[in-house]
Amino acid sequence: MSGNQQVLIDSLPQGKLEAGHYRLNDGAMPEAGEGQVLVKTIAFAITAGTRAGLQGSASYAGAPQAGIVMNGTGVGEVVASNAEGIAVGSKVMAPTGWQQFSAHDAKAVTVIPDNHDPIHYLGPLGVNGLTAYFGLLEVGQPQAGETVMVSAAAGSVGHLVGQIAKIKGNRVVGVCGSEEKGALLVSQLGFDAAVNYKDDGFRQSLKAATPDGVDVYFDNTGGPILGAALFRLNAGGRIACCGVVSQYDTDRPEPGPKGVPGLLVNKRITMRGFLVFDFLEQYAAAREEMHGWLDSGQLRSLTDEVQGLSAAPEAFVDLLAGGNVGTRIVRLD
Amino acid sequence: MSGNQQVLIDSLPQGKLEAGHYRLNDGAMPEAGEGQVLVKTIAFAITAGTRAGLQGSASYAGAPQAGIVMNGTGVGEVVASNAEGIAVGSKVMAPTGWQQFSAHDAKAVTVIPDNHDPIHYLGPLGVNGLTAYFGLLEVGQPQAGETVMVSAAAGSVGHLVGQIAKIKGNRVVGVCGSEEKGALLVSQLGFDAAVNYKDDGFRQSLKAATPDGVDVYFDNTGGPILGAALFRLNAGGRIACCGVVSQYDTDRPEPGPKGVPGLLVNKRITMRGFLVFDFLEQYAAAREEMHGWLDSGQLRSLTDEVQGLSAAPEAFVDLLAGGNVGTRIVRLD
Repeated sequence: MSGNQQVLIDSLPQGKLEAGHYRLNDGAMPEAGEGQVLVKTIAFAITAGTRAGLQGSASYAGAPQAGIVMNGTGVGEVVASNAEGIAVGSKVMAPTGWQQFSAHDAKAVTVIPDNHDPIHYLGPLGVNGLTAYFGLLEVGQPQAGETVMVSAAAGSVGHLVGQIAKIKGNRVVGVCGSEEKGALLVSQLGFDAAVNYKDDGFRQSLKAATPDGVDVYFDNTGGPILGAALFRLNAGGRIACCGVVSQYDTDRPEPGPKGVPGLLVNKRITMRGFLVFDFLEQYAAAREEMHGWLDSGQLRSLTDEVQGLSAAPEAFVDLLAGGNVGTRIVRLD
Repeated sequence: MSGNQQVLIDSLPQGKLEAGHYRLNDGAMPEAGEGQVLVKTIAFAITAGTRAGLQGSASYAGAPQAGIVMNGTGVGEVVASNAEGIAVGSKVMAPTGWQQFSAHDAKAVTVIPDNHDPIHYLGPLGVNGLTAYFGLLEVGQPQAGETVMVSAAAGSVGHLVGQIAKIKGNRVVGVCGSEEKGALLVSQLGFDAAVNYKDDGFRQSLKAATPDGVDVYFDNTGGPILGAALFRLNAGGRIACCGVVSQYDTDRPEPGPKGVPGLLVNKRITMRGFLVFDFLEQYAAAREEMHGWLDSGQLRSLTDEVQGLSAAPEAFVDLLAGGNVGTRIVRLD
């Protein structure tokens, strides 16, 4: 393979996603056009949100399509540049997709400062981290001392949400899918409690873990966990709707939770959906604050790495089944 | 009957409410205690929201109970007063319930200015009107030129929501349950369009009536109409969750709409439940503004009146089945 190794979407999934929906391809080497840079991928992140782009029409990711390179955010090194101000050798964050080389307009890439770890731009300083930061602080607006609940708490966004909430002085309860993940959240990331949604006694455990109720629920899942959260929310509670991972990997989405809108009225709850791109103008300030927390050790980035493009499809399928802890990253170097 | 004629809740409904769940009673005449007034009811309003207080536990109206006077907001005349500053002969709004006489602490009644029509305190200047006003303007926050959709649009709150939205320069689309109601909204209250949710082609009609989508949805119903609204909402849209009339008169609430939370995320929609009591400190200013609109003829109060306590139970059952237009009022005088 002398060209550009890449992973294509071979066919669109009708039900659950399988590795066979993808295929490896030796594509043409792209060139940096006028105002563009050519990027050699160092690593890319695999995130549940991209699953939504593979079916249906109601996605912010655009209409699904087969035969194209799978999309995803990566970091890489600029190996050719026709863009003013971006030197060869610079490290950048870019929508590389699942491939070795990609060309981008200068405005589509984020140049990574020399004193920052590029891999952090797939985690706390990247889309995941910004999503956690703005969703929690701008949408959820927790006050110190309040209880914050987060679902998919061991995931790429969730594990950062909980840590940021701790930094801001909240009690933090994470919901995840195994005892091992829960133990890790509590012992290594400082969560006050973790609850396994797969347990029969989930609702009781959640109640026990939130003795003062829930003030802010950061929802990465929708579905029954959202339903349970509605019952634990206090009057004036807020739900930051970030994602719907419980509904991505299926062609038969479940109905919404029974508490909508009845409990919203009774408890004056606000549910607000958001996309991180809405906060574009505040990215720099958020990165600066989070970089400070990383430096001081208050914020830890968990990654879960696999090696090589050919491992990506299976890593995605496993992610959707809840197999990851932290940010799943595919390394190409 | 020489005492205090009243309507008691005879038994709590298990499924649909029937007139037989109530019974007339000749109760004891209450007395005005220290700091209290004795009120002779002129009229009271029947509103769908009180249905929620008859079952379940998740209601802001408190735990359901049989054997007590049915609750409701009324207006009346003070016939005895031990309260400083409230003279006999004053007209007041009070939680009279469905009965002829009731005693209240001074702080529980609102004295009606002489130049105001007491009946308006069951409509635009009462709880219904304040609910419409704050739900639309504070929760929904429509900007001039935007499209406002309201469900139960011919109801006690809905018919005021639509008119206030028109005053504020919005395109207004009402959803109601008959062609007659819809025609009335358009011809008499200035709605731009009305759509009948009982029609097979409801979703298509709603789409046709909202060519620019929906920016604010004032939700009085929940259920399938909320589901349809989610599809028509624009990015950044707001839902003011006011009530769940579709779910009150049943012991088997439906699941929530499928679009929650997926469409909330994709379209950055905010859903916010509210209770009018949250805006208590702004009541006076709101009443002043609405009284001005009533005086100028910009705001019309629709009422739908029945005569006598004995007619109240059937009037409530009929209201829940969608039989009313405007505010349903029971007159006792």
